[in-house]
Amino acid sequence: MYCIVLFNVLHLQRDSKSHIMEKADSTIAQMRKGVLEMCVLAAISSREAYASDILERLKQSHLIVVEGTLYPILTRLKNEGFLSYRWEESNSGPPRKYYSIMPEGIVFLSELRTGWEGLVHAVSALVAINNQVVTIEDQTQ
Amino acid sequence: MYCIVLFNVLHLQRDSKSHIMEKADSTIAQMRKGVLEMCVLAAISSREAYASDILERLKQSHLIVVEGTLYPILTRLKNEGFLSYRWEESNSGPPRKYYSIMPEGIVFLSELRTGWEGLVHAVSALVAINNQVVTIEDQTQ
Repeated sequence: MYCIVLFNVLHLQRDSKSHIMEKADSTIAQMRKGVLEMCVLAAISSREAYASDILERLKQSHLIVVEGTLYPILTRLKNEGFLSYRWEESNSGPPRKYYSIMPEGIVFLSELRTGWEGLVHAVSALVAINNQVVTIEDQTQ
Repeated sequence: MYCIVLFNVLHLQRDSKSHIMEKADSTIAQMRKGVLEMCVLAAISSREAYASDILERLKQSHLIVVEGTLYPILTRLKNEGFLSYRWEESNSGPPRKYYSIMPEGIVFLSELRTGWEGLVHAVSALVAINNQVVTIEDQTQ
């Protein structure tokens, strides 16, 4: 399979390759978008955390890299009643907002995890079934 | 963790539970939406197939259940140059449109698989780290 991909990459025009990569990046971004709420809740499910903490955990997982993506998710989850926050004084700067998960958030997160695991299982099965060795002859028929 | 979820489910109001389930269904649908193009391409990557065939494979994986979802994806992938089709006469009904993957589609699918695997890995790591045993006392502090 990798030989065929390499063969195809080498024979595609540069414009076509760039178009494919752009399209793939956008589709992968959409996949990532679908799991962000679950990941933010998971990041605060074991203990409360402030925004920079959450961001750091998500950055380490290459899921979110900018604050501008995180804050609207925190606001949405707060408005849905899935998390709450409290202010805490800091010795080294302005007060910090500490986020923690609510009982409703725990149930929501559990539902999302079940859905996510089902999706991973379904996709893995489908991709495995169809990830057979395809010869170049098959492709050019 | 499961005890806490059960504890929380039992203590939530019915309206609240129904709101959580609706919200979770919608978020899971968004997750699923992000992987559909990859799954449709994967379904035709080893051999050509007609729409009902593709739909059957995706139904088995609980990924798509209606034709109305499949056709716009096939059209989009065709317009992007990732798949093509040919008509074939059938002895038992109208001619059938057989879809097959193009070299550009193979490269696109390979990129999506890499992105998907990275996402699954990242989410699993994040969820595992935070999926610690949380006592009810912790939650009520």
